[in-house]
Amino acid sequence: MFKVDLNCDMGESFGLYELGNDEELMQSITSANIACGFHAGDPHVMRKTVELAKKYDVGIGAHPGFPDLLGFGRRFMTCTPLEIKDYVMYQVGALREFSAAADVKIQHCKPHGALFMKAMEDKTIARAILEAIHAIDPNMVIFALSQSEVMEEAIKMGVPVAKEAYADREHTEGGSILLTRTGAQINDYEEMAQRVVRMVKEGRVITHDGKDVSIKAETICIHGDTPGAPTLAKKVVEALKEGGVEIVPIKKII
Amino acid sequence: MFKVDLNCDMGESFGLYELGNDEELMQSITSANIACGFHAGDPHVMRKTVELAKKYDVGIGAHPGFPDLLGFGRRFMTCTPLEIKDYVMYQVGALREFSAAADVKIQHCKPHGALFMKAMEDKTIARAILEAIHAIDPNMVIFALSQSEVMEEAIKMGVPVAKEAYADREHTEGGSILLTRTGAQINDYEEMAQRVVRMVKEGRVITHDGKDVSIKAETICIHGDTPGAPTLAKKVVEALKEGGVEIVPIKKII
Amino acid sequence: MFKVDLNCDMGESFGLYELGNDEELMQSITSANIACGFHAGDPHVMRKTVELAKKYDVGIGAHPGFPDLLGFGRRFMTCTPLEIKDYVMYQVGALREFSAAADVKIQHCKPHGALFMKAMEDKTIARAILEAIHAIDPNMVIFALSQSEVMEEAIKMGVPVAKEAYADREHTEGGSILLTRTGAQINDYEEMAQRVVRMVKEGRVITHDGKDVSIKAETICIHGDTPGAPTLAKKVVEALKEGGVEIVPIKKII
Amino acid sequence: MFKVDLNCDMGESFGLYELGNDEELMQSITSANIACGFHAGDPHVMRKTVELAKKYDVGIGAHPGFPDLLGFGRRFMTCTPLEIKDYVMYQVGALREFSAAADVKIQHCKPHGALFMKAMEDKTIARAILEAIHAIDPNMVIFALSQSEVMEEAIKMGVPVAKEAYADREHTEGGSILLTRTGAQINDYEEMAQRVVRMVKEGRVITHDGKDVSIKAETICIHGDTPGAPTLAKKVVEALKEGGVEIVPIKKII
Repeated sequence: MFKVDLNCDMGESFGLYELGNDEELMQSITSANIACGFHAGDPHVMRKTVELAKKYDVGIGAHPGFPDLLGFGRRFMTCTPLEIKDYVMYQVGALREFSAAADVKIQHCKPHGALFMKAMEDKTIARAILEAIHAIDPNMVIFALSQSEVMEEAIKMGVPVAKEAYADREHTEGGSILLTRTGAQINDYEEMAQRVVRMVKEGRVITHDGKDVSIKAETICIHGDTPGAPTLAKKVVEALKEGGVEIVPIKKII
Repeated sequence: MFKVDLNCDMGESFGLYELGNDEELMQSITSANIACGFHAGDPHVMRKTVELAKKYDVGIGAHPGFPDLLGFGRRFMTCTPLEIKDYVMYQVGALREFSAAADVKIQHCKPHGALFMKAMEDKTIARAILEAIHAIDPNMVIFALSQSEVMEEAIKMGVPVAKEAYADREHTEGGSILLTRTGAQINDYEEMAQRVVRMVKEGRVITHDGKDVSIKAETICIHGDTPGAPTLAKKVVEALKEGGVEIVPIKKII
Repeated sequence: MFKVDLNCDMGESFGLYELGNDEELMQSITSANIACGFHAGDPHVMRKTVELAKKYDVGIGAHPGFPDLLGFGRRFMTCTPLEIKDYVMYQVGALREFSAAADVKIQHCKPHGALFMKAMEDKTIARAILEAIHAIDPNMVIFALSQSEVMEEAIKMGVPVAKEAYADREHTEGGSILLTRTGAQINDYEEMAQRVVRMVKEGRVITHDGKDVSIKAETICIHGDTPGAPTLAKKVVEALKEGGVEIVPIKKII
Repeated sequence: MFKVDLNCDMGESFGLYELGNDEELMQSITSANIACGFHAGDPHVMRKTVELAKKYDVGIGAHPGFPDLLGFGRRFMTCTPLEIKDYVMYQVGALREFSAAADVKIQHCKPHGALFMKAMEDKTIARAILEAIHAIDPNMVIFALSQSEVMEEAIKMGVPVAKEAYADREHTEGGSILLTRTGAQINDYEEMAQRVVRMVKEGRVITHDGKDVSIKAETICIHGDTPGAPTLAKKVVEALKEGGVEIVPIKKII
C-alpha cells in the first residue's frame, strides 16, 4: 500500500502578530514543522503549537531558521558552519523542552526558508545542520529534496532522511523547487492535489518547464501561507485517500 | 565539616561583544549560571561556556532573563506569569541541548537580574519560574534569597532550593541585597572574603546599615562584572579553605 | 464651529507580519500615529505608511514605543528617563527621514502602549518624552489625556499639547481610560459614534461606571486593532459630520 | 599642500557591552563613522558618540549596517535594494536627530562591514545606498574604495564621494582590501604609518602580494578594533605631520 506524510510549517506567529491557520491545517497534516523563535515563533507560540500538534496527533518537527525575524528567515546570511550548527542546536533544544513538557518527542527537523535552500546545495552547511541533529537525537528525521547535499550527507552520516516534494511549488528537473519566479506557485487546488497523488503513486511529476520526470516523495509540503492553504490541504487529503494512499507521520514511513 | 558552593554568572558575551573573565573565574567557582540568549549570551557562547564549565568540573546552571538584550535583563518588564514560564522553558531548553551535547546535566537554575529580583518578592512570578523548572527536571535546584517568595514556593512545591548570599553586595536585614544605591558594593577583597567565611561558618552577616543578623548561605554569588572579580574569587576561595570550608557544587550540599 | 481630529495607530506591520487596515482607515482619519520600529513597524513599513498618509492628506505623527517587539510595546519596562529620551529621539528621527523623503513634516507625537500610559502618570517619564520632542521640533504636538502629567508638563514647557479621548475605550472619572478589564471596550458602533459627538460638542462623557463627567476632546483615537475599526471610523466620521463637526488634522485645531 | 582625512568606526558599543576606545581615538581622527543601532550602537551610545565627536571637532558620519547585531553586520544578507535603501534611510535618520540635537550636521556616510563590501562590487546595492543618501542630503559625502561600483555610481549621480584607503588592511591590485585571510592585517605600526604617508603623498602602495600600484587616498580608515588602534592612530598622525600632510575632515578636501 502507498503511504505518504503531509507536512506544513506551523507556529510562525510572533507576539501579537498572527500568521497562518494552524488549527485548521493540523486537522489535515501528519507532520508539523514548528518555528523556533529565530525567523518566526516565540516561546508562547511554541508551547501552544506543540500542544496543538499533540491534540491532532501530528508528528512534531523543529523548523530552525536564520536569526532574521525582519526577513522571516528568507534571506541568506553568510554564517559559518559552526554558527549554523549552534543555531540549530539552540532552536531544536528550545522546542525539545516544550515537546518534553507535552510528553511528546520531536520526530523530525526541517530547516526553514533560506537555510533550507542553502543547505540543499552547500555541503558544509548541510553537514553543520546534520551534525547538530545527529548529536541531539540519532533517530531524528531530516527532510530534504531528493537530489540535494543534505540527502547525500544524511545517507553518509546515517541520519534518517525523508524525501520531500511540494504540493504548492513547481519542481525542477534537478529535483529542486522554484521559489520566486512568476508561475512558481501553481494555483488550481484540484490540479495540485492530483499532482501530489501522481508523485506518490507513480513517482513522477511534470516540471515547471513541462518535462515529465521521476520524483520520490515520502513527505509532501503544503505552505501554510499559500492562499487557501487549509482548502488545498483538504483537497490533497481527499485525493490521496481516493487514490488509496495512507497518510501517516514520516516516522511510520522511513 | 562546613561546605559551600561558589556561583558566578557566565557566558554573558554576545556576538563580537565580550564580557567577563569566564575562563579565569571557572577555576575558582563550583557552579556557573550560564546566560541563555535573552538578556545576554548567544548559541555559540553557550556551547563554549558549557564546554568550559565541563573542563573545570563546574556545575552547570541556566541563567534565564527577560528578553531585553539592550537592557541586559536588568529592567523589569510587566510580563504575565505564563509568558515568564514560557521564556524560562525556552531558555533552559536551549541550554539543555548544549549540556546534552557535552554529556553533562543542568544542575541548577538562577534567574537573572530583574527577573531574579522580581521573583523574590512576587509570588506569581516565583511560581511561574518554579513551574517551568519543575516540569523540566524535578531535581533541578533553584537559587534564592533565604527570605523570598521563591524560597517559600519552592519548599511548597518540592523544588530543591539553595539559599544564596553575596560576596560583593551588601545584605539587608530582610535577607535581600542592595543593587543600585551608593555603597551597595563593598570593595575590599579581604573584607569581602572574611565576610563570606563568617556567613558560611557562623551564619551571620553585618547588613548595609550595620546590624548583625543571621543568614543562611549554601551558595555564594560573585558577580563576574564586579571589578577584579577573578581576584575576589581567588581571595574567597583562599579564605574559605583557610577556614576549613569545603567548596563544592550545590548538588553535593542540598 | 466644532472641530476635532481623528487619530489612529498606523504602520504596525513588521516584515512579513501584517497588522491593521491602514489604507482603509487612512480614508477616515486626519492624523496617523506611525510606529517607528521599536514595538512595531520596520523601515519599509514606515516608508509606505508615510506615503499612504501623504496620499490621503493625513497628518503624520511619530508613535514611539518601548524596545519590545515581542510584547508589542504593551509591557512596561523600567527604563531610565534618559534611556526613554534617547529612544524617542531615535525613533522620531528615523520617521523624520522618511517624512522628509516624502516632503512632509511630522505634525505630532503620540507615545505607544505602555510608554503612553506610564508617561501619563509619571512626571519624569513625561518630561523625558517632552524634552526629546521639544528638542526635535518646538512645534511638534504631543497627544495626552487631559488630566495627566504629560498635559501638565507640556503646558509648563510650552510644548503644544492636544487633549485626547477615545472612541473605543471606556473613560474614567479621572480622565484616564480602561485598558484591560472586561467591558473596557465598548462594542456598539452607533453608540460609540454618538459618544464621540457628545464628547466633542458637549464636552461630556459617561464613564465606565456610569458617571456623567466633563471631558475635553481635541483629538479622538480609534484603535486600528479594534474589531471592525474601519467601520467604526466611518460611523464616527458620519456622526460627526451629521452633528456639524469639522474633522481636521490637529495642527488646524491647536 | 597634501591633505588627508582620518576616519574610524565609532559608537559600536551596545547596552552594557563596550567596544573600542572612542574617546582616545577621537583625539587623533578627523571623521567618525557612527554606528546607528542595526549592527551595533544604540540610541544612548549614539547620543554620547555624537557629543564626543563634537567635543573633538571630528566630522560626523553615519555608519549603517545590516540588521544583524549577532553577526556585527559582518555577514552578508540577501536583502533587496529597496530594503537596503530603507535601512540606510532609517539609520541615517536616527543619527541625524542626535546630530541635530547637538547642533552639528552629518558630514558623510560609510556603510559598515558586509554592506560596505557588497556595495563596492554590486551596482544595485551601491545605487540603493546612494539613493538614500542623496535623498537625505545632496551634500553628504560617501566613502568608497577607488575602483568600486559605489565610486562609479556616485560620480554618475553627483553624490560627493571620497576615495578611501586603509591603515590596517592589505590592499589588492584591484583597489580593494583583504578582510579575512591570514596576513590581511599588517602589524607594525611604524610600517603602517609610513605606508599611509606614501599612499597620501606618492599615491602608491605595495599590495598584499608585493606589487607596487597606484592608489588614491582622500580618507584613511583605521579600525577601532585593530589591536592597539589608539597607538596606531597616533603613529599615523605623527608620520603624516612629519611628512607635511595636513589632517582635516573630508568636507575640507572634496
